[in-house]
Amino acid sequence: MANGATTNPLDPEEFRRQGHMVIDFIADYYKNIEKYPVLSQVEPGYLKKRLPTSAPFYPESIETILGDVQEHIVPGITHWQSPNYFAYFPSSGSIAGFLGEMLATGFNVVGFNWMSSPAATELESIVMDWLGQMLRLPKSFLFSGNGGGVLQGTTCEAILCTLVAARDRTLRIIGNENIGKLVVYCSDQTHCAFKKAAQIAGIHPDNFKVIPTTLSSSFSMSPKALRNTITADVEAGLVPIFLLATVGTTSTTAVDPLGPLCDVAKDYGMWVHVDAAYAGSICICPEFRHFIDGVEGANSFSFNAHKWFFTTLDCCCLWVKDPTALTQSLSTDPEYLKNKATESKQVVDYKDWQLALSRRFRSLKLWLVLRSYGVEKLRGFLRSHVKMAKLFQGFVEADERFEVVVPRNFATLCFRISPSALTTNNNAILSEINGSRRISDTSPKKMVTENELNNKLMDSINRSGRVYMTHSVVGGIFLLRFAVGASLTEESHVIEAWNVVKQQADIILNSHHSEF
Amino acid sequence: MANGATTNPLDPEEFRRQGHMVIDFIADYYKNIEKYPVLSQVEPGYLKKRLPTSAPFYPESIETILGDVQEHIVPGITHWQSPNYFAYFPSSGSIAGFLGEMLATGFNVVGFNWMSSPAATELESIVMDWLGQMLRLPKSFLFSGNGGGVLQGTTCEAILCTLVAARDRTLRIIGNENIGKLVVYCSDQTHCAFKKAAQIAGIHPDNFKVIPTTLSSSFSMSPKALRNTITADVEAGLVPIFLLATVGTTSTTAVDPLGPLCDVAKDYGMWVHVDAAYAGSICICPEFRHFIDGVEGANSFSFNAHKWFFTTLDCCCLWVKDPTALTQSLSTDPEYLKNKATESKQVVDYKDWQLALSRRFRSLKLWLVLRSYGVEKLRGFLRSHVKMAKLFQGFVEADERFEVVVPRNFATLCFRISPSALTTNNNAILSEINGSRRISDTSPKKMVTENELNNKLMDSINRSGRVYMTHSVVGGIFLLRFAVGASLTEESHVIEAWNVVKQQADIILNSHHSEF
Repeated sequence: MANGATTNPLDPEEFRRQGHMVIDFIADYYKNIEKYPVLSQVEPGYLKKRLPTSAPFYPESIETILGDVQEHIVPGITHWQSPNYFAYFPSSGSIAGFLGEMLATGFNVVGFNWMSSPAATELESIVMDWLGQMLRLPKSFLFSGNGGGVLQGTTCEAILCTLVAARDRTLRIIGNENIGKLVVYCSDQTHCAFKKAAQIAGIHPDNFKVIPTTLSSSFSMSPKALRNTITADVEAGLVPIFLLATVGTTSTTAVDPLGPLCDVAKDYGMWVHVDAAYAGSICICPEFRHFIDGVEGANSFSFNAHKWFFTTLDCCCLWVKDPTALTQSLSTDPEYLKNKATESKQVVDYKDWQLALSRRFRSLKLWLVLRSYGVEKLRGFLRSHVKMAKLFQGFVEADERFEVVVPRNFATLCFRISPSALTTNNNAILSEINGSRRISDTSPKKMVTENELNNKLMDSINRSGRVYMTHSVVGGIFLLRFAVGASLTEESHVIEAWNVVKQQADIILNSHHSEF
Repeated sequence: MANGATTNPLDPEEFRRQGHMVIDFIADYYKNIEKYPVLSQVEPGYLKKRLPTSAPFYPESIETILGDVQEHIVPGITHWQSPNYFAYFPSSGSIAGFLGEMLATGFNVVGFNWMSSPAATELESIVMDWLGQMLRLPKSFLFSGNGGGVLQGTTCEAILCTLVAARDRTLRIIGNENIGKLVVYCSDQTHCAFKKAAQIAGIHPDNFKVIPTTLSSSFSMSPKALRNTITADVEAGLVPIFLLATVGTTSTTAVDPLGPLCDVAKDYGMWVHVDAAYAGSICICPEFRHFIDGVEGANSFSFNAHKWFFTTLDCCCLWVKDPTALTQSLSTDPEYLKNKATESKQVVDYKDWQLALSRRFRSLKLWLVLRSYGVEKLRGFLRSHVKMAKLFQGFVEADERFEVVVPRNFATLCFRISPSALTTNNNAILSEINGSRRISDTSPKKMVTENELNNKLMDSINRSGRVYMTHSVVGGIFLLRFAVGASLTEESHVIEAWNVVKQQADIILNSHHSEF
């Protein structure tokens, strides 16, 4: 025993006793989850008022601690696992994902290289090939085709790793002193992770080029606009190195045309990374696979299994065609990690495929998800979410006060109170908000007002605690995002969510109306 | 239900049933852990031969899967939780750490900003202040003193974040076009994570300056040598921005003199980060606190709670004096994340303190560790590990064939078969290995031979499967590292480990000897 008379901190029987208690705690949490407001209703600083100002000197019992979790932590949680959660993108938990995380935590190995735990490395390579096959990725992305997959924590890391690989590939040719000439490209819909990655990688801020998109093209990136920008940059003596294309943008789940974009990039020898963080999952369904057509022209592809693939946070799946490009930038070889397996070159050392040295045994949870549900059930789960999003879409389309802002691609619907509804039926509302301004005014100022109304709708929906959804603004339009994907969500929850939207819209519209 | 007739992937009762099974599986694993060879004995590619080449189409039962974990995964695991694990640095698990991870996985919130789950942010800030107090960090590192703490995944991330903050702080003054002039400093004992971070951050490879260390100063960094290097760089027109100082290096747990190093750095306006990844933990014991004396002159400080603080991987604790420097480099503000709490500036949004956007609820496990054990027991656990390392040191010192290579600071002992033992008692061995070379030869070639013998000793120890320890090479000396810290380790395991070392040394030395 580590500390004389005290219990060992990893005593198996005490582990068993407390472990069972926490399993029951979490099972009860799921059972009762609908009792809590989806969006936490606490005020900033709430927890400081409830907890001591310093750590306890003497041990406290698990019973006391779990009591405090229930009393003080649960009220401060926004319940991403709630069936009434439709915000951001899902963080879809599952039993299999949870159990895989438990096993990884139980083994608690630090799998930086093959030798430090061979199973951690080998299972990851195997599972990434499995998943690559399920997505019908070109063989060149799989280990079986001299590419390979790796589990990163997040898409942010996947982007930074591939960007650094692309950067160094070019700098090895033109010299490190030319880092200021490197240019990277994306659209105005690309996730903010890319701008941050470029900043971290030392790309000059002026050389972060953003291609504008429009509502008329559903906010997808224009290959022509990309080519024009690149041409001008090359003429100015700059060196294009990297394009980030997105399948399923965060604001509206827009899809960039991979084939034509890769064709442009190819002409300039650029690295193309495809960020399918959200939408990648559903491409395991044959009828959705076309959304990643053209991926064969890209250099790397990633999606988040922790978003909409039942694998708990964090688990981003990244495939690259040329692992050597990654390892040339990210390898380390200190004496204290040297070993015969590495020297034999028969093994993968994943520390050289990622930012950090240490890494968790993440492939276990992905393996458990794939095996527990199989391809068939996974497709079924995802299709059921799309079906529920369609159901919600039907409600929106049937109510003339509302409109769908952009066509739905997956299980996320972008909608709002329609401006036409406002001008035709609720002149009073706008005239009240606009004051002396005429209702037929189509100036940006009017749009701001429509946006304010939709913002108000969202706030009132979320304050109800009954559902949670979030927003974006694209092309100046404030829209509400209804993202289906929480594992516990059933059709009844979607119907109820629509009722909440309608009720809140009634209150907002009628209260204003009745004032006139 | 998500998929008609099938069970919901997060059904509470099925969760309960399977969760209890896995708790028992892991409890049994800990109970039986000594039955397995500590270092996995599998060959590269072992798992591919045992698993199917593609994911199953139909679901498989948890019983089948757990059977496969036992049969196919466990043999490929290097058992970091084994009481006979003394390799690298510990990955010290605990019941509390495990349960905290379970709760975080169960809630599965994505706490990128305050609003996305207020408890995740607030508990982290509170716990980081608690822990900062336990370490007697200057108040300027705590939220209560306008600094603040954040949980990163790994030290690699902590270093990269602080380096980028320091880089951009300077670039804002001298202009982005001068990135090629920036210089960073460390010693030849600094963890390889720093070189990788500098590479990722776009620091010119020529400007990564390594200060040599020597055995005579126990491999700690010389402030004088640092100043000389910086002076020369400044004269050459370069701009010093960052110093990485280490408390407890990976090879020998050497300690850089923080006070004098910070004094040098201060003269040049450099950022100093203190990497106490391993040794930071034990600085909660008053008698060890002096090892981080001088930290008040640094800009940031980090240690890994997942190494030697009973908190499962991953959990790196980072404190900074100037959070604004971090957030100026790492902030993002996309429309889809805008919210009133952020706009009120009353909250911390941790996404702006780290590389990635998404983040797990890591503070839960740290909170559970602090509360379950309290300051008293945590100190007791750590002191027991130091005591066991001392016990092992006694064995080494009492056996004239062995020597301690550098003075022990913490719970890691660096030792080897002594060269004097070889020359006085085992001339035959060396003459056999050296062939015609004279035994009194003190050339590098002789040292290589001594090193080969110690390498052979390590290999035979690890191949026995009874214990696992790793090596390093410092100042040309191959040494074995005996790192105590696995939670299940008791004195009996240390005694047994020494027996293994002795037995293997006997075999190696005698087999050679008997040939003559």
